[in-house]
Amino acid sequence: MARWQPETTQRLVVAAVDLFTEQGYDATTVAQIAERAGVTKSTFFRHFSDKRELLVAGQETLSRLLAEGIAEAPPDAGPLDAVAAGLERASSAMGPANRELGPRLRAAVAASTELQERDALKSVGLAAAMTAALIARGVQDPTAHLAAELGVLAFKRGYAEWSEGDRDDARGLAHHALAALRELRAAAASLG
Amino acid sequence: MARWQPETTQRLVVAAVDLFTEQGYDATTVAQIAERAGVTKSTFFRHFSDKRELLVAGQETLSRLLAEGIAEAPPDAGPLDAVAAGLERASSAMGPANRELGPRLRAAVAASTELQERDALKSVGLAAAMTAALIARGVQDPTAHLAAELGVLAFKRGYAEWSEGDRDDARGLAHHALAALRELRAAAASLG
Repeated sequence: MARWQPETTQRLVVAAVDLFTEQGYDATTVAQIAERAGVTKSTFFRHFSDKRELLVAGQETLSRLLAEGIAEAPPDAGPLDAVAAGLERASSAMGPANRELGPRLRAAVAASTELQERDALKSVGLAAAMTAALIARGVQDPTAHLAAELGVLAFKRGYAEWSEGDRDDARGLAHHALAALRELRAAAASLG
Repeated sequence: MARWQPETTQRLVVAAVDLFTEQGYDATTVAQIAERAGVTKSTFFRHFSDKRELLVAGQETLSRLLAEGIAEAPPDAGPLDAVAAGLERASSAMGPANRELGPRLRAAVAASTELQERDALKSVGLAAAMTAALIARGVQDPTAHLAAELGVLAFKRGYAEWSEGDRDDARGLAHHALAALRELRAAAASLG
């Protein structure tokens, strides 16, 4: 299984989200985050350009995995089946640390307009990566764009279910993301 | 026809977008925007909290109009027909000044990550307003959310067509937004 993030990155993210939750995003400094993670400020800046970037750690990895899964789906797979393959690929890289982060991350984002903006642009980036991967498979626009949007919604809903749900539920993120995609697919069909 | 924005607001937006295009977003100050628009800085701050907010002028109005159109659609209208009514209502408030702004606005956004983030959150806000209006009509989630996302995509595509297309094309924004919605509806049906 692919490592989602190098260990230091992971530690910085956990430290930052803890501090955002304890004292708010605006009041948290890079120095505090580095100290909590047990690293120097210069180590912090080797990993992130600023504290906000912490919260989108992994966005590039996530985009790449989604696109790879779509690219490698069987040639005869339809757009949403290709999207499902992308969700499976991306989910396989998300482990217990990602699950634990979910609720605290969401609390931090809910409390800050700046983080909401960054988070919204992250979704746009993920949709763009999936749209491009679908178009490379020969899917026409706007079908490609629409299928990608369904993929983003499914990933977000699946991640929320997985990270906020029952900890005794051993099913992984892939299960929840694919269930959400099936639900959205049915909803799309019902639009008429 | 509803006035989209009070005249001073409109003038400030035009001045700002011109300056963003001429010299970049970061290099543009509130003082310069106010001067170009022929008003004082304190007049500026009566209308906007900062220069970034200029670019989302009208977001609240737009959300309200979309939601009103959805709420007032015939009781037996399906989710996408209600969305179409929302698009028509919102389009009716967009005049020639909005059309002229489109390309320059897009250029300014393309050149600034900060503006891209704000713009992405704007789309999230519009989708949320439409989702809430659809749920109030009894549409279930995730159908409501999905129909709202189609509405946002249709509005953005229609606005791009209208504001960047042939100036001799006298058809209004509503025509282009509804055409985009029909295309997205067909794409949704083709997802299978």
